Amino acid sequence: MYAVEVRDHIMVAHSFKGDLFGPAQGVHGATFVVDVAFFRDALTEDGVVVDIGRAGEALKATLEPLNYKNLDDLPQFAGRNTTTEFLAKHVFDAMAAAARDGSLGPGGEGLVRMRVTLHESHVARAWYEGALDGG
Amino acid sequence: MYAVEVRDHIMVAHSFKGDLFGPAQGVHGATFVVDVAFFRDALTEDGVVVDIGRAGEALKATLEPLNYKNLDDLPQFAGRNTTTEFLAKHVFDAMAAAARDGSLGPGGEGLVRMRVTLHESHVARAWYEGALDGG
Amino acid sequence: MYAVEVRDHIMVAHSFKGDLFGPAQGVHGATFVVDVAFFRDALTEDGVVVDIGRAGEALKATLEPLNYKNLDDLPQFAGRNTTTEFLAKHVFDAMAAAARDGSLGPGGEGLVRMRVTLHESHVARAWYEGALDGG
Amino acid sequence: MYAVEVRDHIMVAHSFKGDLFGPAQGVHGATFVVDVAFFRDALTEDGVVVDIGRAGEALKATLEPLNYKNLDDLPQFAGRNTTTEFLAKHVFDAMAAAARDGSLGPGGEGLVRMRVTLHESHVARAWYEGALDGG
Amino acid sequence: MYAVEVRDHIMVAHSFKGDLFGPAQGVHGATFVVDVAFFRDALTEDGVVVDIGRAGEALKATLEPLNYKNLDDLPQFAGRNTTTEFLAKHVFDAMAAAARDGSLGPGGEGLVRMRVTLHESHVARAWYEGALDGG
Amino acid sequence: MYAVEVRDHIMVAHSFKGDLFGPAQGVHGATFVVDVAFFRDALTEDGVVVDIGRAGEALKATLEPLNYKNLDDLPQFAGRNTTTEFLAKHVFDAMAAAARDGSLGPGGEGLVRMRVTLHESHVARAWYEGALDGG
Repeated sequence: MYAVEVRDHIMVAHSFKGDLFGPAQGVHGATFVVDVAFFRDALTEDGVVVDIGRAGEALKATLEPLNYKNLDDLPQFAGRNTTTEFLAKHVFDAMAAAARDGSLGPGGEGLVRMRVTLHESHVARAWYEGALDGG
Repeated sequence: MYAVEVRDHIMVAHSFKGDLFGPAQGVHGATFVVDVAFFRDALTEDGVVVDIGRAGEALKATLEPLNYKNLDDLPQFAGRNTTTEFLAKHVFDAMAAAARDGSLGPGGEGLVRMRVTLHESHVARAWYEGALDGG
Repeated sequence: MYAVEVRDHIMVAHSFKGDLFGPAQGVHGATFVVDVAFFRDALTEDGVVVDIGRAGEALKATLEPLNYKNLDDLPQFAGRNTTTEFLAKHVFDAMAAAARDGSLGPGGEGLVRMRVTLHESHVARAWYEGALDGG
Repeated sequence: MYAVEVRDHIMVAHSFKGDLFGPAQGVHGATFVVDVAFFRDALTEDGVVVDIGRAGEALKATLEPLNYKNLDDLPQFAGRNTTTEFLAKHVFDAMAAAARDGSLGPGGEGLVRMRVTLHESHVARAWYEGALDGG
Repeated sequence: MYAVEVRDHIMVAHSFKGDLFGPAQGVHGATFVVDVAFFRDALTEDGVVVDIGRAGEALKATLEPLNYKNLDDLPQFAGRNTTTEFLAKHVFDAMAAAARDGSLGPGGEGLVRMRVTLHESHVARAWYEGALDGG
Repeated sequence: MYAVEVRDHIMVAHSFKGDLFGPAQGVHGATFVVDVAFFRDALTEDGVVVDIGRAGEALKATLEPLNYKNLDDLPQFAGRNTTTEFLAKHVFDAMAAAARDGSLGPGGEGLVRMRVTLHESHVARAWYEGALDGG
C-alpha cells in the first residue's frame, strides 16, 4: 500500500461541555497541525498516489472555514464538542468529498483509505482513519 | 477508527546480554519518549476516544516505577533484555490493565486497540501494537 | 555561557485589534509550546545551571493562570494584543520574578540571561531574550 | 505486532515528466529522510525485532547508490518518475531483499511486514508498506 | 530583544566544485527548510515584531526564483558553490532588502537583526545572522 | 556570522550526587542528541564554514569514548556530576581541541565560536557556547 501525506494548520477557539473536560469547559484555543494521508494500492501512470499540490490546496480549502474562528459559533458544530478526534473526522469527511468530486485530480479516484491526524501540542494528537467509498 | 495519543518520557539505565548487542552489553542508558495511542471505533457521548487527562496520568503511573532506575535491578525484568521493543510491550500490558480496571475513565471500556511507541533517539524507535481484550 | 531549557505548553483563546491582523481579529486560539532557557556563566556546586525540576514547576505555575483561558477576559492583558511575541515577554517577566524570589532554587541567583520561546505552529514562533537584573 | 524503525537520509537531484508536475518538471532536488520499519509477530531470543545496527547498515547500503546522485542518470530508473512514493517502494524492495538474503541478521528471517517512509520536507512525506514473502 | 521566525522550504539541485566535497561534486539536490528570524528591540504599536503574514509572503517571494531549480543554471550563482551556508546569506540579503523597501510592512523599518537558517536534513543545518543597516 | 551545525547521539548511564537530584541520585540513563554549531565570520574559499563531513567525524570520535558507557566509571569524570550542561562543556572542550589540531580540516582554523547542545528529552536540553582561542 502506497501513501502520501500533506500538512497544514489552523488556529481556533472553542469550549467543551461536560465535567470530563475540567478547565477546558471555558473558552480556550488550539493550534492544530493537520496531516492528511492518502492511501492507494498502486501508483498512477504519473507515478504518484495523488497530486501533492492539489491535495494541499484541497486541505487548505477544507480548513479555511475553520481557521481563525471560534468553533462554538459555527452552525455545523452546534451542540457538538469539537474535540481533536471529532475534528479529525470532520476533516476526513470533507477530504473524502474532495476525493469523490475530483478535486484531488488524477489519483483521487482510486484512493482506498485516508487518515487525518491533528497534532494539538508536542505531547498529544488524535486521528481518524477509514476506508473511502470508491476504494 | 479513531485514535488519541499522549506522550511522556523516562530516563533509565540497563545492559543487554548477547553478542548481538556489542558495546551495549555494558551498562548504558536511554531516554525513552513514550507515545501511547488508544483506538476506538466510535467516540463517547462526550465526543472523545478517552479522557486525555486520565490517559496521561495512567501513563505517568505506568512509567513511574521505571523512571530514573537501572532496569537491571528490577525483579520484574530479571533475566530479560529490556530492549526498546520489549519495553514497548511492557508499557502496553500495563496500559491495557489500566483500560480494563477503569483507570482511563469514560471511553476506556470501548478501546479496541493500543499502540505504544518508544523513541530512543532521533534515528530509532520501536513500538508494540495489539488488540485489547474488551475490543 | 551555559544554558538549560525546559518546555511546557498552554492552549488559549484570544483576538487581536488592528487591520494588520486580518481574520485573526476574530476570536480564535493557539497552542503555545513554551521553552524557557536559563543562562549562567558558571555551573553551581552541584554542576547545574538551575534545578531543572524547580524550573519546570516555576514555568507551570507561570502558565497556569493563562492555560485554557480566553486571554481577552484577563485583566492583566486589558487593552493589549496578546501576540506571540507579547506573551513571550509576559512569561519572561514572570520567570524573572521567580528567579529573583528564589523559586528556581540553587542556581537561580546567578542567572544572567533568559530566553522565552513560544512555538505557535510548525511554521512560526517568537521569543524574547534579555538580561536578568541579578546577572 | 512488534516494530523497530531506523532512519537515514539521501540528497538527490531528479526531474519529473508530465504536466501534473508543473515546475518540478525541471531538474531540482530533495533531501529524503528515510525511515524503515520492520514488523515481527514475536521477539527473537535476544529480545529484539531485528538487529538495529545491521538494519541501519543495510539501509545505508541500500541508499548509497542513490546518495548525491542525479536519479535521472541512473539506468535502474530509466523512463520512470522517481517520485517520493516510487522511491519508497524502491527502498522497500531492496530492504526486502536484504531480509531474504540474511543481511539483517537474527530476526530478519521472521519479519512479516515492512514500511518505508520518505520525508521530503516539514510538510510532506510518502511511504510504502507491505507484507514480506517470508512473513 | 524580541524575535519572530517564519518557515518555508525549497527543493533544489546543485553541484559543488572542490575535492572537499567528495561525492557532492556531482549533481545532487536538497530540500532546504528555511527559517527567517526577525529581531526588534521593542514591539510596534500593534504589539508585533513584524507582520507575520507579510514576512511569510516576502520569504516565499525570495525563495520562488530558486524553488524547483538547478542552482548551477542560475546566473546569480555563477562560479559559486551554493552551499547551505552560502544560501543562508543569499536569503538573508534578499530579506534585508525586503525590510529596507517596506515589503515587510509595519515593524520592518525597526528591525535590528535577522537570522536565516537552512535545515538540510535531520542531522545538519546552517545559518547566517547579522545586523540590519537600519538597526 | 555564519554557522553550520551537525548532529549525533550517545546513550549513557550515570548517577548524580546531591539532594537536589532527588530520584536521579540513583543509576539511570539518557539518550543525548548532540548538536555542535561552528561559527565563522566569513566562508572559506570553498564556500563553507567547515567541512561538514569532517566535523561529523570529529564529533563521532569525541562521543565514542562515552557512548554505551556508565559515566560513573570513567576516570575523567571522577567526582563530578555529569549533568547535561556539564557534558555540553566536555564536548565543547574536545571539539575545540579538534579545531585547534586541524582535525576539522579547512575552515577549522578560523572558527570564532562554538555551541554544543545536548537534547535529553522532548522537553529539556542544555548547551554551552563560547569563543574559540583562535577566533
